[in-house]
Amino acid sequence: MTEIKDSAYAAIVSCGRTRFSELWEDSMSDLMLDSLLESLNSTNGNMEFKDIESMYVGNFISEKIVDQGLVAGELAQQFGTHIPIFRLEGACASGGLALYNACLGIKSGKFDVVAVCGVEKMTDRGEIVTDALAAAASDWERFYGNTFPGLYATLMARHMYEYGTTREQLAMVAVKNHQHAVNNDKAQYPFPIKIESVLKSPLIADPVRLLDCSPVSDGASSIILCKPEIAKKYTETPVYVTGAGAATDALSFFSRNDFTGLAVTRIAAQQAFRDAKILQKDVDILEVHDCFTIEEITALEDLKFVEKGEGGPFIGEAVDSFKGSKHIIYPTESGEIVVNCGGGLKADGHPVGATGSRQICEIWEQLLGIAGKKQVDLDTDLLTGVAHNIGGTGGVGSVHVLQV
Amino acid sequence: MTEIKDSAYAAIVSCGRTRFSELWEDSMSDLMLDSLLESLNSTNGNMEFKDIESMYVGNFISEKIVDQGLVAGELAQQFGTHIPIFRLEGACASGGLALYNACLGIKSGKFDVVAVCGVEKMTDRGEIVTDALAAAASDWERFYGNTFPGLYATLMARHMYEYGTTREQLAMVAVKNHQHAVNNDKAQYPFPIKIESVLKSPLIADPVRLLDCSPVSDGASSIILCKPEIAKKYTETPVYVTGAGAATDALSFFSRNDFTGLAVTRIAAQQAFRDAKILQKDVDILEVHDCFTIEEITALEDLKFVEKGEGGPFIGEAVDSFKGSKHIIYPTESGEIVVNCGGGLKADGHPVGATGSRQICEIWEQLLGIAGKKQVDLDTDLLTGVAHNIGGTGGVGSVHVLQV
Repeated sequence: MTEIKDSAYAAIVSCGRTRFSELWEDSMSDLMLDSLLESLNSTNGNMEFKDIESMYVGNFISEKIVDQGLVAGELAQQFGTHIPIFRLEGACASGGLALYNACLGIKSGKFDVVAVCGVEKMTDRGEIVTDALAAAASDWERFYGNTFPGLYATLMARHMYEYGTTREQLAMVAVKNHQHAVNNDKAQYPFPIKIESVLKSPLIADPVRLLDCSPVSDGASSIILCKPEIAKKYTETPVYVTGAGAATDALSFFSRNDFTGLAVTRIAAQQAFRDAKILQKDVDILEVHDCFTIEEITALEDLKFVEKGEGGPFIGEAVDSFKGSKHIIYPTESGEIVVNCGGGLKADGHPVGATGSRQICEIWEQLLGIAGKKQVDLDTDLLTGVAHNIGGTGGVGSVHVLQV
Repeated sequence: MTEIKDSAYAAIVSCGRTRFSELWEDSMSDLMLDSLLESLNSTNGNMEFKDIESMYVGNFISEKIVDQGLVAGELAQQFGTHIPIFRLEGACASGGLALYNACLGIKSGKFDVVAVCGVEKMTDRGEIVTDALAAAASDWERFYGNTFPGLYATLMARHMYEYGTTREQLAMVAVKNHQHAVNNDKAQYPFPIKIESVLKSPLIADPVRLLDCSPVSDGASSIILCKPEIAKKYTETPVYVTGAGAATDALSFFSRNDFTGLAVTRIAAQQAFRDAKILQKDVDILEVHDCFTIEEITALEDLKFVEKGEGGPFIGEAVDSFKGSKHIIYPTESGEIVVNCGGGLKADGHPVGATGSRQICEIWEQLLGIAGKKQVDLDTDLLTGVAHNIGGTGGVGSVHVLQV
């Protein structure tokens, strides 16, 4: 433990989140406030708002959907504070990048305690949200009418062509993640679905079907972090951020050599795993960015949990051997791993700016054994979790390692 | 020198910027690229792009104006790089907040060399830019039709009422800054104006007139920073960032106790001056956020160069005593100071996300004596510069101290 603490970027004191859903009665401010207050309340009075020295907000399209920029001032108004607040925008990876910079803020010695808050309001403006999201694609991809489902359809089609990944295997990603959401009170879609339902769902952009897509959601999620040395002042059970990686890539597929995987995942993971001095076999739980079913499969490959092209069969076998416990468990070299414990983007929901920090909330709960009905139960202790967050079609990405 | 270096956040290796103007033939990418390449070229080959380990982009309204989010991926595409790139959005203070986080990135030990790039494209969409900028005001200010000139008009009117600040004194801010831009090749409005022109210019939002307002501009500006210990590897003449402050405030005036000044300026300045261990009398050149003429006056007060309410007479006397040299010089307790050496937001231009980093470019040039025709010439050496950057009507703000 001493070793982990010494090399860590930061210690997580607490996390909190709202339900992910269509939350028409809550403003963006309400959502931020609710999730931050839940984080604070979880400390049982060991931490008060005045202990927080700065905040990092992850948010993508508030200007487009709710016409609000300068979220920092909005948040300052809610809390009546003057602390520095920074907004990081990296499309759907905004939350992960906010955490990354919060870690550097602590590591720099400038702040002892910081909060991260990811937030997005999306469902109020259903008629413009597809266009708004397309702002994370390149001009040249949008000019000819492409959308995000269209771009991921390209990736999916090529992966099927190159590696023989089947429609059934892809559907199993959605089936697995819906199964994981069944016990998640805060998930947008806490119900199981069948493979046939995915295969028969409306075609959005061939071969992507409706149930391959993560939903449009409202929600917020928060993390309170502190300098590792002072963590015990605020909590008996700190979770440490021991690895942090971030990378970028050309915005558009046509500028890359390959689009059956994402370079940002490979590079960010390498950094984060090296930082934390862990190998894939050390990971117990993994949150990956399953914005579309294909992306969970390529993430498993890019994160090197399986060889390139083997992501499809890997999930296929796991789902086939599922015996009806709460979670579908993948075998790894030295044990077992659960991926997207609370339903992932697909079933828990995907309020884009809030997803990166929601993944951290999930891992924090699981590692501490406080995830309630959705608690993962493996033969070994849960010691290490990894979060993988992607923006655009891999224009940016972050990977974080959390350990107890 | 050793002392400055030891306590500094970072050393500036080089700066670069585009012309600020209506640059319809340049895309946002073009502008970022041009300014970053100028920064690199200024190092005379001592630094190459591959030395840069991460980038911090300051940008406000690219989603609204050019429909582009995820600027990180756009920039990665231009440079063919995979380094982490972060976009900070804090309205017109985006550039200052990008620098602030770049400094923390270096201070954390994560990066040795980083680049900051502020950028904005505004003039292509003249018909929507006023609305787009209003995204940095609060819902309740916009619902009843307010705009940024309207909000600063409130501040101006109240300052005139409380402290007897005159229309002539306010006009002198614009006159001074246009005078300073005359020798600035990259300024949007490099020509002198008369007090009468300001007073007779069209009324925008009483008492704000057209020539009280900074313009709508396109442009980009960049800063390359490194760990202070390694600065001499890249340049013989590093400029050190020795103080960094950032603060927030309630987004809307109606939630504040006072709107004749900005709390964010007072708080951020206190932090930055304390960091750098300097007093107001040590400052030789100052770049303040003169988005509207009133804001230069309140900034001089909030930064404590003059007592509250004395900003108007202070600039009035300086302009009255102007003898026709290049710059209008304010007397200070222990010497002299020049404010907005290249024309400030008013005359140099105000591509919002690029302003914070443009201020740093200006100070860097001035402190090194390489500002060309617009070089400030005081009786004493130029040793210390301060940059003051505001977002919204003071919802966020940053202050940085630069020293040689």
